[in-house]
Amino acid sequence: MKREELVDITSTRPGTPGGRFMRQFWLAVHRSEDLAKGHAKPIRIMSEDYTLYRGESGRAQVFAYRCPHRGAPLHLGWVEGDALRCLYHGWKFDCGGQCIEMPAEDANFARKVSAPSFPTREHMGLVFAYFGEGEPPAWPPYPAPPQEGLIHCWNVETVPCNWLQCYENTADEVHVAFVHRPGGSHAKLAADLPVISAEETDWGMLRYGTRPGGQVRHTLHYMPNTTRVIVPPLAGFDGVGGWQEIYFSFTPIDDENHLWLITSHVKVAGAEAERFLAKKAEFLEKVRQAPKVMDVVHDVWAGRRRLVDIDHPELAMVQDIAVQAGQGRIADRTKEHLGRSDAGIILWRKMLARELAAIAEGRPPKKWRVPPPDVVPIVGV
Amino acid sequence: MKREELVDITSTRPGTPGGRFMRQFWLAVHRSEDLAKGHAKPIRIMSEDYTLYRGESGRAQVFAYRCPHRGAPLHLGWVEGDALRCLYHGWKFDCGGQCIEMPAEDANFARKVSAPSFPTREHMGLVFAYFGEGEPPAWPPYPAPPQEGLIHCWNVETVPCNWLQCYENTADEVHVAFVHRPGGSHAKLAADLPVISAEETDWGMLRYGTRPGGQVRHTLHYMPNTTRVIVPPLAGFDGVGGWQEIYFSFTPIDDENHLWLITSHVKVAGAEAERFLAKKAEFLEKVRQAPKVMDVVHDVWAGRRRLVDIDHPELAMVQDIAVQAGQGRIADRTKEHLGRSDAGIILWRKMLARELAAIAEGRPPKKWRVPPPDVVPIVGV
Amino acid sequence: MKREELVDITSTRPGTPGGRFMRQFWLAVHRSEDLAKGHAKPIRIMSEDYTLYRGESGRAQVFAYRCPHRGAPLHLGWVEGDALRCLYHGWKFDCGGQCIEMPAEDANFARKVSAPSFPTREHMGLVFAYFGEGEPPAWPPYPAPPQEGLIHCWNVETVPCNWLQCYENTADEVHVAFVHRPGGSHAKLAADLPVISAEETDWGMLRYGTRPGGQVRHTLHYMPNTTRVIVPPLAGFDGVGGWQEIYFSFTPIDDENHLWLITSHVKVAGAEAERFLAKKAEFLEKVRQAPKVMDVVHDVWAGRRRLVDIDHPELAMVQDIAVQAGQGRIADRTKEHLGRSDAGIILWRKMLARELAAIAEGRPPKKWRVPPPDVVPIVGV
Repeated sequence: MKREELVDITSTRPGTPGGRFMRQFWLAVHRSEDLAKGHAKPIRIMSEDYTLYRGESGRAQVFAYRCPHRGAPLHLGWVEGDALRCLYHGWKFDCGGQCIEMPAEDANFARKVSAPSFPTREHMGLVFAYFGEGEPPAWPPYPAPPQEGLIHCWNVETVPCNWLQCYENTADEVHVAFVHRPGGSHAKLAADLPVISAEETDWGMLRYGTRPGGQVRHTLHYMPNTTRVIVPPLAGFDGVGGWQEIYFSFTPIDDENHLWLITSHVKVAGAEAERFLAKKAEFLEKVRQAPKVMDVVHDVWAGRRRLVDIDHPELAMVQDIAVQAGQGRIADRTKEHLGRSDAGIILWRKMLARELAAIAEGRPPKKWRVPPPDVVPIVGV
Repeated sequence: MKREELVDITSTRPGTPGGRFMRQFWLAVHRSEDLAKGHAKPIRIMSEDYTLYRGESGRAQVFAYRCPHRGAPLHLGWVEGDALRCLYHGWKFDCGGQCIEMPAEDANFARKVSAPSFPTREHMGLVFAYFGEGEPPAWPPYPAPPQEGLIHCWNVETVPCNWLQCYENTADEVHVAFVHRPGGSHAKLAADLPVISAEETDWGMLRYGTRPGGQVRHTLHYMPNTTRVIVPPLAGFDGVGGWQEIYFSFTPIDDENHLWLITSHVKVAGAEAERFLAKKAEFLEKVRQAPKVMDVVHDVWAGRRRLVDIDHPELAMVQDIAVQAGQGRIADRTKEHLGRSDAGIILWRKMLARELAAIAEGRPPKKWRVPPPDVVPIVGV
Repeated sequence: MKREELVDITSTRPGTPGGRFMRQFWLAVHRSEDLAKGHAKPIRIMSEDYTLYRGESGRAQVFAYRCPHRGAPLHLGWVEGDALRCLYHGWKFDCGGQCIEMPAEDANFARKVSAPSFPTREHMGLVFAYFGEGEPPAWPPYPAPPQEGLIHCWNVETVPCNWLQCYENTADEVHVAFVHRPGGSHAKLAADLPVISAEETDWGMLRYGTRPGGQVRHTLHYMPNTTRVIVPPLAGFDGVGGWQEIYFSFTPIDDENHLWLITSHVKVAGAEAERFLAKKAEFLEKVRQAPKVMDVVHDVWAGRRRLVDIDHPELAMVQDIAVQAGQGRIADRTKEHLGRSDAGIILWRKMLARELAAIAEGRPPKKWRVPPPDVVPIVGV
């Protein structure tokens, strides 16, 4: 039996090898623009609930979900400065977690009580938090491209399956020719399919897609859950923005759901940036008017509509989620028949299984480095 | 470990100590005005299903949920006089449970079959039933105020959490200053917070809220699930009706849901009563047009809306349910940090744990008396 | 204890005695007219998922649900001729299950991989499949009436309860006088109730309903899940079509849900057939405009509406599902009080329990014959 069948590489629940592994890294948990000053909201990450709020100074903070007094959800309360006050009885906590006020209690009770607070920072339009023990790893979790440009952060999607399925899909270059061309002439595309190879690096995995003409596409897979790749102009943008660098992150909500967070770096400035933003506004308006992605996916899954008949501004998202979450809430990897085109997935699983086995058996895991800024993805098509 | 951590004080499933305890009392199960003559409906109380119907004479009756023949839900059938006829094959039962007709069977079969029927009575606009063994306790379950007045029964809410959380909240006078003043100046209110104390009585618990000025508010907590308190004029009533006596009852549907039943005694008569009823009609019309309370609560829980931004005719209900059911379907009491303001809750849990331990260990429980009419709540503010 | 209490006669999960029993027969799984050429959809039968598709030649095929490569649902893909191509990486399978193309893999990999495919045929407007081992039994699963006529296949309903409850109801002639006459004078009808008797045959069960006047109605119960009976002109058809022969089939989706598939043979031809089809179009238009059957049933179950107050073009379906699925997802048969009118149900359960016990104990089950065309139902009223 292979090691990846002995260790559960999909679970990130607290205490599991995967849960302990993932808690060693900064993880993207929210889109920055979706968190207004003075607002608090609930988030669920790796099967645990948290409060996420942005203080009046602009500081984002991941905090305990429940008040230590009687368990009220803290996001119901008030943000006061960068502190948080519970709705139920007015207990107030500074952003480090210390209780600093208990209106109806003895004066010395507050200093004895605190709530967990988690290192929180922002990068390329996303809020990251660190849920592990001790000091968080180096910052930022991955480098931005060196060029001038504009950060474009996509709508965050909640996907009803284990995070690893969608992560694996980013190492599966062949799927593009089929999943994203329903009804099209895939026979022709099939002739141009890349040959996939991959190698482990000290920050994750570097994957190559070699085309029949000899061009090689380089894609970066950063540990533990982010893929950096160059993609064509976005559908619905009429070429504006050109080829972009995209960072896909897949953060577990629990073992059967995850957040799909996408930030991209568009090489535009000045008037070109204005044109891009205008296209983006148009696109977002179309999205607002369209059925929700998951509603369309559920229609497709139930057989009420055929995927090949769907027209939708976020069609690629519909296609990806339909097929990847369609593999099951947690895909049964024991029934697969993997081929040479699955080389990237095979290597990633080996690395993950090796690391989780080390954690499970108490051996020291690999020391992952922050990715160097000069290793960048290459289009290669 | 404390006794209330050894006994499960939250469960009322049949056979549990809590289930046996609660089945010793009359319990409110429905609002009288919601049950029309000749109508039958399903109710679920303490994890068991029942049929509730009102005979053509006006008599309310709690009855078995299923026909003993082949298990059809009896509320689907016909109310005939004060009897109930099953839809499936026409078996007819008198309100005491005896089968009195089986159209397609041998003549002597009916008298061999009966279905459970439960003592059922009405008081202050609510239907009460007794689910225990032997004779029910004295009637009524609690006294009405002696003054002339009008009974005003609120819309019944189904709350998605264990009954004890919302019951405990009625012993938590401090929450009012915070939960029901979102966005308001709670700092000022905090200065006026009451000091809480409580004592056990032979019918439940008497709780005192002593204000800095020396006034003392008295609130009555009747065993097992009713609180009697004097409250200010209702929101949206412009002061009409004045301070009312309110009886809150929390009846378990199952361990994770309960009915919040509220009846009140408004000291009005004649023209003043007309004005009150006109205000009530206005208020109910606003409620009908507003989003459902639980829909708003779910928006708040999911972080789609902030509680402090909500405007709703039943705002207090939204606030209460958001925070109390927000503690979890069954709150985890092992993680609490209780203070002096929780004195009422602490005493109630001790009493409950003591009684349930007695039941679990086969010792005789306390004999609770029907509350005397002359112990009444006092405003004290 | 009776044998039917020792063997679970309700479950058809793979590996259970009931699951092994049911997999010996052709089972109706879909309405033919709901499956267009070139379309694929998911179906779930006896707790297992499948792909159902109709090739471009018109051939219907039940196929594996997931691609053997990486588990993508095959119904998301393309029907090409009578073959099926997976959306994820373009693997193509012929209708027998052999993989015949893998665009991104080595040329010799495809012939090593296949997916399960199941014998599939069509009869009287329904798609049947065989899920057992070895060769399927004789075809067709039951005879059509010999007369000229028109096949009328009803809308298929998904019923949220175990299949056996609704099947048993077809052996329960007495229910008609009550379930389908709410608000009517059932006292009068009760006087005419039939006396029920039944006998086992080599293809199932023949059941008799003897009326006080001496007429006898014959109903055929074909193993394992189909009942053939003559019924009055359909509600809403104004007598057009006359008395029809109806075949009810109840195919398990899983143990708590089933498909109710109804096909009927209407003895009309020429102008009379045209009139029938016009009435049918009118009726279907009314159904399209009416609330969904299950929405009405849920209103009734929750007590929001009384069954006796409902007006609906598919009222009989609403009534049947309300009472039969109202018995519970899987009815608790241990609490029943059966009478002489339940003779058909009692015999059927005995037969089923005997067969399932034989399977469980490794004894040879009865060899069921295909029903002879000359044993036909008789109206008898």
